[in-house]
Amino acid sequence: MMVVKAGGGKGIHYEAVCDEIAALQQRGEQPILVHGGSHLTNELAEALGHNPHFVTSPSGFTSRFTDPQTMGIFMMAYCGKTNKQIVEGLQQRGINAIGLSGIDGKLWVGKQKSAIRVVENGKTRILRGNLTGKVESVNTDLLNSLLQSGFLPVLCPPAMTSEGVAINVDGDRAAAITATAMQADQLVILSNVPGVMKDITQPSSRISEIRRTDLEDISQTFAQGRMKIKLLAAAAAIDGGVKRVVIADARLDNCISRALQGEGTSITA
Amino acid sequence: MMVVKAGGGKGIHYEAVCDEIAALQQRGEQPILVHGGSHLTNELAEALGHNPHFVTSPSGFTSRFTDPQTMGIFMMAYCGKTNKQIVEGLQQRGINAIGLSGIDGKLWVGKQKSAIRVVENGKTRILRGNLTGKVESVNTDLLNSLLQSGFLPVLCPPAMTSEGVAINVDGDRAAAITATAMQADQLVILSNVPGVMKDITQPSSRISEIRRTDLEDISQTFAQGRMKIKLLAAAAAIDGGVKRVVIADARLDNCISRALQGEGTSITA
Repeated sequence: MMVVKAGGGKGIHYEAVCDEIAALQQRGEQPILVHGGSHLTNELAEALGHNPHFVTSPSGFTSRFTDPQTMGIFMMAYCGKTNKQIVEGLQQRGINAIGLSGIDGKLWVGKQKSAIRVVENGKTRILRGNLTGKVESVNTDLLNSLLQSGFLPVLCPPAMTSEGVAINVDGDRAAAITATAMQADQLVILSNVPGVMKDITQPSSRISEIRRTDLEDISQTFAQGRMKIKLLAAAAAIDGGVKRVVIADARLDNCISRALQGEGTSITA
Repeated sequence: MMVVKAGGGKGIHYEAVCDEIAALQQRGEQPILVHGGSHLTNELAEALGHNPHFVTSPSGFTSRFTDPQTMGIFMMAYCGKTNKQIVEGLQQRGINAIGLSGIDGKLWVGKQKSAIRVVENGKTRILRGNLTGKVESVNTDLLNSLLQSGFLPVLCPPAMTSEGVAINVDGDRAAAITATAMQADQLVILSNVPGVMKDITQPSSRISEIRRTDLEDISQTFAQGRMKIKLLAAAAAIDGGVKRVVIADARLDNCISRALQGEGTSITA
């Protein structure tokens, strides 16, 4: 069992990801695909005149502030166009994909964090009404039943609270808890960076292997922005029993094969 | 077993439809919900500068011409915002809904009709490249398995060809073939009209009951535009063994209960 997370940043080509998923399945793997959609969400929000609003927490994490209108746009980008175009791409490769968001069949249930502390112009303040949170449980019965029937699950945010409210959740961390819950051996996190870099301007500075015990140190020393969250996700997956997490570049040909062969950054216990 | 189709026209409130579906389930019914999304698709297409293009066939049927860009917008409106907001609304009412499009798990498979004859300015011409078609088969195994696990399926176009190409299909007719394939007793088609009217300006002119043998005559005499397609869907459902089709007004309180009690137009064998 392998969970593959394909980011939704600029430059990610889902056709190539579909090719790779098809190749994985032909080699007898039974992957679950989790995808993002942030770049399309930003483009759509701008086109609709509801500009994306990103906020930064006091500890330096950046996230999308999700009001109800943004949630509607988010659903259009993630669950609509991106999810269904990936499902269509897989169907065209003979794979019986089935696309679900975290609110379908209570797939991903978690807690909302409505009020968040944000830093704006150097000052910390509280913002309320944020439809965001964190996945705490995965409906493994649903996923196992789909896998047993020969479907390939294609999953994306939002998740939902136990009261049924849709919440925006981080896709990397949702993929990590899914990998843990499904007892996956490997989690491959693909995005538009080559891995963890000592210097993001120097491709040769990629760190190819990280042990779990060194993860926090390396994150603090080298990781910036979204990479910090990917390393949190990797830590959660390894702590949850996943044997190996690979952070790799989705923009390369044969991106998953390359990731599994050691390109990117490999994290193990 | 009952299939409910909730149209996607202007004035349809999905919150009310969710209330009704919840009430149905409390009365022991096991409904399947099929929904539209045409009004949101039009709004979104206009906002994104890709104006909707409707075409009329020589026999007078109007449909959306679906080029690849329109299909992306269609997926955002139908599978994204509309499907997930309905699923969220049902989850908030304690119903474990699961939203799928026709391309998920090969739910709805049919043939593409790429070239269509259209009438423009009184002249008939052929338009090619239309991502549209008609559902021919329903994955009843998938639906039965979801129902047995306690999920309420919330379904919407697009469907797919056997080659995996997403095709826009008429939601009413997709609901009819779903009702037939699932051996439903009843199909309720809700939209923003009170039923089949002898005169659409006169609410009192509603035809409350139609026998299958009179359907074509009544359609030819009284039905206009979208209602013609609803009556084709009703005919297909009745011919397929569905005992009763009700065409009714989604804009009324308790719309499904009222439909079942005889408001709207009831079609039987």
